[in-house]
Amino acid sequence: MVPEIASAQAKKATWIYYPGDYEIWLGNKMQNRRTDRGAFLPVLWKMDSHYVLVEFHKEFDVPANEEVKLFVEGTYNVKIDGQAFVGYPKSITMPAGRHKLSLKVYNQANVPTIFVQGKTVVSDDSWLVTFEDKEWIDATGKVSDKSGTTYLNAGSWNFNDPVMPPSKFSLPTIPQHAISSDKQSHSFFLDFGKETFGFVKLHGLKGKGKLHIYYGESKEEALSVDHCETLDELTINEPAKKDSVMELSKALRYVNVQFDSGISVDSVSMLYEYAPLTERGSFKCSDEEINNIYDISKYTLHLATREFFIDGIKRDRWIWSGDAYQSYAMNYYSFFDSPTVTRTILALRGKDPVTSHINTIMDYTFYWFLSINDYYQYTGDKTFIKQFYPRMQTLMDYCLARRDKNGMMAGLPGDWLFIDWADGLSKKGELSFEQLLFCRSLETMAICAKQYGDVEGAAKYQALADDMKVKIFKLYWNDQKHALVHSLIDGQQSDNVTRYTNMFAIFFNYFNEQQKQDVKKSVLLNDNIQKITTPYMRFYELEALCAMGEQDYVLKQMKDYWGGMLKLGATSFWEEYNPTKSGADIYAMYGRPFGKSLCHAWGASPIYLLGKYYMGVKPTGPGYSTYQIEPVLGGLKWMSGSVPTPDGNIDVYASTTEIKVKGAAGLGTLRFKSKSKPVCKTVEIKNLGNNVYEVSVEKDKSYAIKYSAI
Amino acid sequence: MVPEIASAQAKKATWIYYPGDYEIWLGNKMQNRRTDRGAFLPVLWKMDSHYVLVEFHKEFDVPANEEVKLFVEGTYNVKIDGQAFVGYPKSITMPAGRHKLSLKVYNQANVPTIFVQGKTVVSDDSWLVTFEDKEWIDATGKVSDKSGTTYLNAGSWNFNDPVMPPSKFSLPTIPQHAISSDKQSHSFFLDFGKETFGFVKLHGLKGKGKLHIYYGESKEEALSVDHCETLDELTINEPAKKDSVMELSKALRYVNVQFDSGISVDSVSMLYEYAPLTERGSFKCSDEEINNIYDISKYTLHLATREFFIDGIKRDRWIWSGDAYQSYAMNYYSFFDSPTVTRTILALRGKDPVTSHINTIMDYTFYWFLSINDYYQYTGDKTFIKQFYPRMQTLMDYCLARRDKNGMMAGLPGDWLFIDWADGLSKKGELSFEQLLFCRSLETMAICAKQYGDVEGAAKYQALADDMKVKIFKLYWNDQKHALVHSLIDGQQSDNVTRYTNMFAIFFNYFNEQQKQDVKKSVLLNDNIQKITTPYMRFYELEALCAMGEQDYVLKQMKDYWGGMLKLGATSFWEEYNPTKSGADIYAMYGRPFGKSLCHAWGASPIYLLGKYYMGVKPTGPGYSTYQIEPVLGGLKWMSGSVPTPDGNIDVYASTTEIKVKGAAGLGTLRFKSKSKPVCKTVEIKNLGNNVYEVSVEKDKSYAIKYSAI
Repeated sequence: MVPEIASAQAKKATWIYYPGDYEIWLGNKMQNRRTDRGAFLPVLWKMDSHYVLVEFHKEFDVPANEEVKLFVEGTYNVKIDGQAFVGYPKSITMPAGRHKLSLKVYNQANVPTIFVQGKTVVSDDSWLVTFEDKEWIDATGKVSDKSGTTYLNAGSWNFNDPVMPPSKFSLPTIPQHAISSDKQSHSFFLDFGKETFGFVKLHGLKGKGKLHIYYGESKEEALSVDHCETLDELTINEPAKKDSVMELSKALRYVNVQFDSGISVDSVSMLYEYAPLTERGSFKCSDEEINNIYDISKYTLHLATREFFIDGIKRDRWIWSGDAYQSYAMNYYSFFDSPTVTRTILALRGKDPVTSHINTIMDYTFYWFLSINDYYQYTGDKTFIKQFYPRMQTLMDYCLARRDKNGMMAGLPGDWLFIDWADGLSKKGELSFEQLLFCRSLETMAICAKQYGDVEGAAKYQALADDMKVKIFKLYWNDQKHALVHSLIDGQQSDNVTRYTNMFAIFFNYFNEQQKQDVKKSVLLNDNIQKITTPYMRFYELEALCAMGEQDYVLKQMKDYWGGMLKLGATSFWEEYNPTKSGADIYAMYGRPFGKSLCHAWGASPIYLLGKYYMGVKPTGPGYSTYQIEPVLGGLKWMSGSVPTPDGNIDVYASTTEIKVKGAAGLGTLRFKSKSKPVCKTVEIKNLGNNVYEVSVEKDKSYAIKYSAI
Repeated sequence: MVPEIASAQAKKATWIYYPGDYEIWLGNKMQNRRTDRGAFLPVLWKMDSHYVLVEFHKEFDVPANEEVKLFVEGTYNVKIDGQAFVGYPKSITMPAGRHKLSLKVYNQANVPTIFVQGKTVVSDDSWLVTFEDKEWIDATGKVSDKSGTTYLNAGSWNFNDPVMPPSKFSLPTIPQHAISSDKQSHSFFLDFGKETFGFVKLHGLKGKGKLHIYYGESKEEALSVDHCETLDELTINEPAKKDSVMELSKALRYVNVQFDSGISVDSVSMLYEYAPLTERGSFKCSDEEINNIYDISKYTLHLATREFFIDGIKRDRWIWSGDAYQSYAMNYYSFFDSPTVTRTILALRGKDPVTSHINTIMDYTFYWFLSINDYYQYTGDKTFIKQFYPRMQTLMDYCLARRDKNGMMAGLPGDWLFIDWADGLSKKGELSFEQLLFCRSLETMAICAKQYGDVEGAAKYQALADDMKVKIFKLYWNDQKHALVHSLIDGQQSDNVTRYTNMFAIFFNYFNEQQKQDVKKSVLLNDNIQKITTPYMRFYELEALCAMGEQDYVLKQMKDYWGGMLKLGATSFWEEYNPTKSGADIYAMYGRPFGKSLCHAWGASPIYLLGKYYMGVKPTGPGYSTYQIEPVLGGLKWMSGSVPTPDGNIDVYASTTEIKVKGAAGLGTLRFKSKSKPVCKTVEIKNLGNNVYEVSVEKDKSYAIKYSAI
């Protein structure tokens, strides 16, 4: 079966591979760099591998004989129209006419990849690949018809330099220097001024003995040689002065270097390692604290965006689906780096067979499904769905096979039901939160099945989703509590109401208007309901409130919560923040004094909230084919910024008296409220009644409107 | 779930790994050494990989503190009772008392393996391993209960030297010299006297230019620079004399070395590469031609037994399930090398998901199932079934999901229905041969399910097998033809009767006595039924005849067929032999003049026939717990030999007047026919009537009987 994926004639060559394989391989490599107090600390779930033997081919119409250069990672053969060359040619001649060029590559250690460069014959994602070509020949020499072979389009990722093969890839680095360095005879103590990440470099290292480096996100951590989370222990034997760079990168603000008396060090610096992202989104407003929160959020997200979207840079340095799901959302309003999204989605998914939930967590499996729907909405990339829908199917098969007798996802041995870090959160019985995410995942399957052309699947998943939605309201809704309850235990509603299910049901748009208002009052704005202490779930809580027009309230919350971390000296946002804690206690988690990560991607959600619910920009059709701009000041005097789309930025400025927007590709709809009739010189303003006005926004055109904010 | 596998306290350490993983990794390595006229020629099916991240652990009762040395292939951590050491310790102290030692190892390029050597703390297959430890901790630091984790016992394979890790394994070599060497100014032509295998070595190589080596299993092939199947093309630039060994081993008898005038070579030899097997089985008899056939068979099998049982040493040098199935059978009567059997079975199976039949061939999937039953019968190794029954299940699931609406295995796109190389063999419709093997596979599943403790599975598979057996006779048996017909097309019997299904049904014991006799006459001894030209199917044809007591006839066939190859100068047995062909035509196959393999494992079946049906030794209980000895001379004056069992050899001598046997562990039953009353001094002879007599054979005891052969 060959998926029909349109691909224009390529202009330049790129390294190609079996789709998803490089992502898995790189994910293994990156996630196996974590250490915990000097001990290797790998992930706790299955790591998959690339296919070690891959066939690549494409048919070309070659205008005239041309020389084609071949670069290959692995042991390979090359065939034109099925005829193999002897050995491992680095260059071949493709004869004029229609010819099929194929390469078959074996590589156990690295991903089989090829780079083919001729004038018209080049490697790109229009090539087809398979891990199983079934190229039988019979006793007379006849080759099989290969009708049973599945081909996919090749994967690629801007590896456009033939001498820089994918296996050699690493993120770039630049030197960075401490803002203060306290040098003693056998030690250094450095402060790099803010949270950062990279490789410590010892300059002029000389002598013999032991040298220790203790890393700290806080000063207290770097000083705590017994409890800091990361450290290096080196045995030095350098007769002559030499610069030495640590093998593994670390998260740090402070560095505590201690060494034996036989050792001398001239100075210490670091190499900052970073993902080369473009800052496309921006936000600025009348409130300097919010501007600060936005900037630190973006820095936090940038630090935690590496080869993949990871959770935190000190720990776990792994790809967690729930964390990544939020990074994707923030990314759509900042870097709009789609390759990092798909890389992360693919690394998380790994390969069949599915032997556990993603990251072993049930909710994280569901976020994985949801992330594909979001990705499609923001980027419009159908190719991704066409390539990977089968992996969605098998993961959903895994879920469906784990339903209990009531058709619910209750959790079986080995399933981690996470939801959130929260004291005493019950995981017993059938949790409403998991069913809600399951339902949304089934809806996503139905949408993707349609895109893939799986009509039967689309109907099946939609029916399952519909059924689950009915169940959720029938079984969990409580008229007295005006909310969905937390769980069912032996078929009975638990007394417990938590924020999680209710807030997700708001922005999933599962409630009717009355239920929404009930839930807002009885849950979201009710202080008797257990509070959320992680930025992770604050993300969704504030999103739900924004979705209900509570931008004023949320702005105060943001200033309170993220502002609270800033007041404690945060230079990046944390894994968890509890305003009731103080002193060094603020750094403790997991029973360890410095267990908490102080640079955690899920801490950066203001990027998303400000972009989507204040500037009010979001796609309404795949890839911003249509979109909405609904600026809401939420108490700000003015705000100004940009939201990236696949085809340029949408610029938004809003004050209490003026709105200015510039459209990107696609058709936008600007909607706003005004006390008085708004005025625009260039475009007609539609009056929708109730003080609501609407303007159509076209590609690259600018609009300035005088109005009077409500 | 932890399988209960008994394992005695180990005496010595060995390298251990995730079971099945080293086999897959080594299979990839070995099968990717094939070249075809200098071009890399890998397999056409999916190659799997080892798990790249594996946790190993075991609890020990340590009598006193002991030092434990650690050897690891990969990046690793070491924990005692969950507490990790810093860095990568090469030696640790295990404290006295009960403690859990665990290592977690990451290795992408090679299999994660460990070697742990203390006084009592050693690595062996009593350790448990997993690819997914799910070791969650919650926000307070509490570790998960891990009830959802699946552990298996570690795999191992006599890698007992800590400094020779599994990734460095290679077969041994010894120098071998040609029996004739024709040296010219720019060439050598060598004859090594017989089929052999290894690395050509150029002695005193010097100069600059091109050098070609053309390999030949026949003289004609080595001389045919344009059509020999394997060759090396080297670019030489050696200013000083140097010995040079080729990188890849080759099958050869003749070597044709040609080089440019700027090059000189002193002499050419080779390094013979071999599997270090013990020749446990033996056979000698009154017929020198049969002795020759037996010896050449054993040499053929030895050459084709390498890291795994492969098909042929020139080509394909791959592991084919149908070919290997025969090698296992021969191996039980010669080397009795069980590790090579399990290695081959595991490499063939690979990992889930199953995406095609084994080697893409439906019948080869079925032989894979059958091979496990045979393995269990000959070795009694239950551990193997306990470890790998889940992989049997998922492969059978794959088969069951591919049945047609009649519940038959008819072949879907991508399925190769092989049966045999035979002109015009129809593959249309539902083939009786495939259903027969499918039925036998289901029976094997039922047996293994019982061993594994899967009661429900045992019942399910038995019911499916019973149903299929009924169908086979209802749908394929033809009373007029006195045979099972070849196929059903649209529910109608085809006219065609072939030998395949009928001969298998004989030794599967599916026929009643009348059907057996009918089939013998109307099919097996009927020259109007298409003849078999491959030793591959001759194996089963002659087995069926032997199973019906036709040893006299089969002996003549053996002399005719295998003797025919010897008369053509064979020094090992071939992939195919057609007595009607002559001249260089005898080497042609697959449309290529030297396409035929002249050393093919399936050519060695006399080993099996002579051991099982002439010496008449076979297990009747798992691992020869009980066994039969039924010597049949088949026209020979005398024969003498040994058949290996897991616990020593069974020795058999038989002439027309005397039978002598020595038992191995287990309880044997010697049965024979005699015209007159037989005499034995040491044991009672039971008279079963009809001139049949029986003697019980005990462990290591010898029995001599005077009788008069019928």
